[in-house]
Amino acid sequence: MPEHRNTFAGNPLDREAARRRDEEWVGTQLRDASAEFLPLRSLTFPMRQVDGGMRLAWSRLPVGADIDRHPALLLGTSNGAARFAINEAAAPGQFELSDDASFMDLRAAAPVLDGDDAGIAAQARAFLDWHERHQFCAVCGAPTEAVQGGISRKCRSCPAEHFPRTDPVVITVVIDTERDRCLLGRQASWPAGMFSALAGFIDHGESIEDAVRREVAEESGIDAVNVRYHSSQPWPFPSSLMIGCHADAGSADINYDEWEMDDVRWFTRDEIRDSLEQPAAQLGQPGLPEGALSLPGPMAIAHTLITAWADGTA
Amino acid sequence: MPEHRNTFAGNPLDREAARRRDEEWVGTQLRDASAEFLPLRSLTFPMRQVDGGMRLAWSRLPVGADIDRHPALLLGTSNGAARFAINEAAAPGQFELSDDASFMDLRAAAPVLDGDDAGIAAQARAFLDWHERHQFCAVCGAPTEAVQGGISRKCRSCPAEHFPRTDPVVITVVIDTERDRCLLGRQASWPAGMFSALAGFIDHGESIEDAVRREVAEESGIDAVNVRYHSSQPWPFPSSLMIGCHADAGSADINYDEWEMDDVRWFTRDEIRDSLEQPAAQLGQPGLPEGALSLPGPMAIAHTLITAWADGTA
Repeated sequence: MPEHRNTFAGNPLDREAARRRDEEWVGTQLRDASAEFLPLRSLTFPMRQVDGGMRLAWSRLPVGADIDRHPALLLGTSNGAARFAINEAAAPGQFELSDDASFMDLRAAAPVLDGDDAGIAAQARAFLDWHERHQFCAVCGAPTEAVQGGISRKCRSCPAEHFPRTDPVVITVVIDTERDRCLLGRQASWPAGMFSALAGFIDHGESIEDAVRREVAEESGIDAVNVRYHSSQPWPFPSSLMIGCHADAGSADINYDEWEMDDVRWFTRDEIRDSLEQPAAQLGQPGLPEGALSLPGPMAIAHTLITAWADGTA
Repeated sequence: MPEHRNTFAGNPLDREAARRRDEEWVGTQLRDASAEFLPLRSLTFPMRQVDGGMRLAWSRLPVGADIDRHPALLLGTSNGAARFAINEAAAPGQFELSDDASFMDLRAAAPVLDGDDAGIAAQARAFLDWHERHQFCAVCGAPTEAVQGGISRKCRSCPAEHFPRTDPVVITVVIDTERDRCLLGRQASWPAGMFSALAGFIDHGESIEDAVRREVAEESGIDAVNVRYHSSQPWPFPSSLMIGCHADAGSADINYDEWEMDDVRWFTRDEIRDSLEQPAAQLGQPGLPEGALSLPGPMAIAHTLITAWADGTA
């Protein structure tokens, strides 16, 4: 099966694992005239319209800017030029947006954002958010500081070094082959009619397959058997790695915890195909007929997994 | 392909995601006569020999014990009876080990530990270690406290809630089909002659496949193409999730960073098979002939991935 590239995958930057170990090299990149910066405002991104789609709007550092006190995070290089993300609030007035750019929410903009730029933005959002929320050492409570362009934070008081976290999540479409139907669920906070694949964080001491079986059992009461990996997706809200799977149903009777799920049902292939053919249904937009099934849009790996089953490639 | 159960996968406990939300239920379990405890000493485990292998040695709480002040972590239930892990140092003198039990290092004992018990120990080790190292809030620096039997830690000062982390790692055997050889590397700290699959942490904003390509390129200079998932493994040293893959080689010339790798080489199928047939070589034991290839033992997913290729199932 050829690799499926989900939205936010395929970031084209060179993360420079070797060269960034040299703090002096990072400092030189920061001051190089070719360096480009992505100033984030409350985790929204500067973007501009280009040819009907959106692109990230990078900034240059003004001559004489006092960058040393700014916690600029090195994303990597592109054709040898360094790319940094920075919290705009930490460098007030240093970065001027061009007239055609504005700050956009990544989740809202992703469906129309250039694919490579979506990958860079996913990296930047997870990276900056983690740094903002890890100013203190979890071991001893003292302040920490970023090193090597942000690859980790070192405690100023104890020997602890902290690395950005990535939280693996399993997301699964369970298939009842005999009755040609698949299992989807919904949470109470979702728009009416919206259903998706069952998902949850992988717990400590679990394999991917263990986690799929536990999450499916917890959310639906169904036995998931024959778990098979399909594809994966960075999901930077705030720092998940979505691990997409299909599994077969080892039982048929649905039984769920109403604290966790609002509804869980079997859907026939025709019901899924009908919904996938309505673009409005995939975006969870209002105006759907009463009772119509709405599915996640193409930016979500749930869409990939559901479509793969509907197309007979799961 | 049937699922491969790696060491530490397949923990049989019910993690009780729903019932543990009720603090009162957790407290009742703690005092129930059927509850069993695993007291860890500096992250080593009480074990006893049973029928030539090893089993975890569980303890009961003595009558009248003052458990309220102990941060006991609820692992889950087995046949309705609760199982807890606890740092022995936090409950001095409360748990008495039977005469036939002693504290063992999990990595050393895993090859002879019962498979279900290895899964429980992996959960306990990752869980307890995370709690020990997250006594303070990374957002504000104030003390935190465990809730719901340890499912998270809440800050006593700000609204932050912190969950145990699991760090996804990609580990890959790259295959050169045309010349029937596979790519392995070694680090300078390993025993002489020991080689293994290439591995590294998944970075923020990376898919599994992106991470495989980057890590293989960084550690060997080889282009990894056609990445395929094989199986996964919890690796609680301290909290990794190993994601095992095979990939094809898109290039042949090895080029590595000597800071990161001590040696990287292509090995023929005969070289790999010869090594796998020598049990001593798989355990990295001394006494191997000069220049002999040593591979990771069966408890490591690297062994699974290398063996799958050698057996023609990769």
